[in-house]
Amino acid sequence: MTAKANGTGRSGRRPGQSGARQAILDAARTRFSEAGFDKTSIRGVAAAAGVDPALVHHYFGTKQQLFAAVVDLPVDPEATLKLIDAAPLDELGPTLLRAVATVWDSPAGPGLIAAVRTLLGGNDPELARTFLLEVVLERVRLRIATPADDGRKRIALVASQMIGALVARKIVGVEPLASMPIPELVAAVGPTVQRYLTGVVEPG
Amino acid sequence: MTAKANGTGRSGRRPGQSGARQAILDAARTRFSEAGFDKTSIRGVAAAAGVDPALVHHYFGTKQQLFAAVVDLPVDPEATLKLIDAAPLDELGPTLLRAVATVWDSPAGPGLIAAVRTLLGGNDPELARTFLLEVVLERVRLRIATPADDGRKRIALVASQMIGALVARKIVGVEPLASMPIPELVAAVGPTVQRYLTGVVEPG
Repeated sequence: MTAKANGTGRSGRRPGQSGARQAILDAARTRFSEAGFDKTSIRGVAAAAGVDPALVHHYFGTKQQLFAAVVDLPVDPEATLKLIDAAPLDELGPTLLRAVATVWDSPAGPGLIAAVRTLLGGNDPELARTFLLEVVLERVRLRIATPADDGRKRIALVASQMIGALVARKIVGVEPLASMPIPELVAAVGPTVQRYLTGVVEPG
Repeated sequence: MTAKANGTGRSGRRPGQSGARQAILDAARTRFSEAGFDKTSIRGVAAAAGVDPALVHHYFGTKQQLFAAVVDLPVDPEATLKLIDAAPLDELGPTLLRAVATVWDSPAGPGLIAAVRTLLGGNDPELARTFLLEVVLERVRLRIATPADDGRKRIALVASQMIGALVARKIVGVEPLASMPIPELVAAVGPTVQRYLTGVVEPG
């Protein structure tokens, strides 16, 4: 896809610019919410917003970055996902938990937690589901999927423990979990995430 | 404490009655939120509301039932807690999860889940913490506490998995967890709750 001069491109900063940006965000929110992350395309969002696809890229970058803007995410998940790609399979659970907990506890944490609270309390569970399963956990699923097990149940179980640890630690503030150092959290909860990813999750 | 005729008792249904009921609820919400469940007394709530303690009992019953009314809980937790009291220690995790998931999936579930969403999304995390730790999980903690381990860390870990399973299953709707039969959920997640309650939660 090539950028083309269409009257709203980078050369002209016109009064209508923020209107176009908002129209893209609104269209993207609707598409992500209705179709999910995978089935939403930049081209489709652009068409719904009545702008050129190049303008969507210009304002927001990749589809993942557009999604992050829609849910008002203060961090780019890419750095965390790279750590996960690099972890050995038998350390994936603790690695995932450590990486995510480090983001929660970072300066970006409060903004991220506010976004999660909005997703949980809001009327758009589809967006929360998309965020969790298609943006954050899909890359993890691809690491554990086999011909016999697509990993979807495992990933849903991982999601249940990760959501719960986030809510208990950062939203409800359940002590001593809320003030536990990350290594202690990882030692206690990491084995759960690892079992869900690669261990036994069916009755024997 | 004995009920006494104080002008707002059962014989007279006067216009002021719903006002007194609401004043009690408002006072109770403030006290539970500021002091927690244990340190709130019916007498203190009555004093703050400017009514006789007997009237609080008359409208709401026990302190636990008053708390349930404050958080708009559609079920009395007592039935679930009795199941937990009766479970053998080595089956406490699956039993707790089965009992709670059964309530989530019952006709009372949607009201309960609405209350949890309000607690999570609202500005009153202290009330959510009180509900979780002092009403639901304190009875579980008393079953596992030993002189060497008061069980608070274990209970916080249990809370993290229970909250996460509830949110993933009933709020976000993460499949296949959302539509999984309860026995399958218990087989997959029960061992986690059991490990948190009675297994190893420290690095060896």
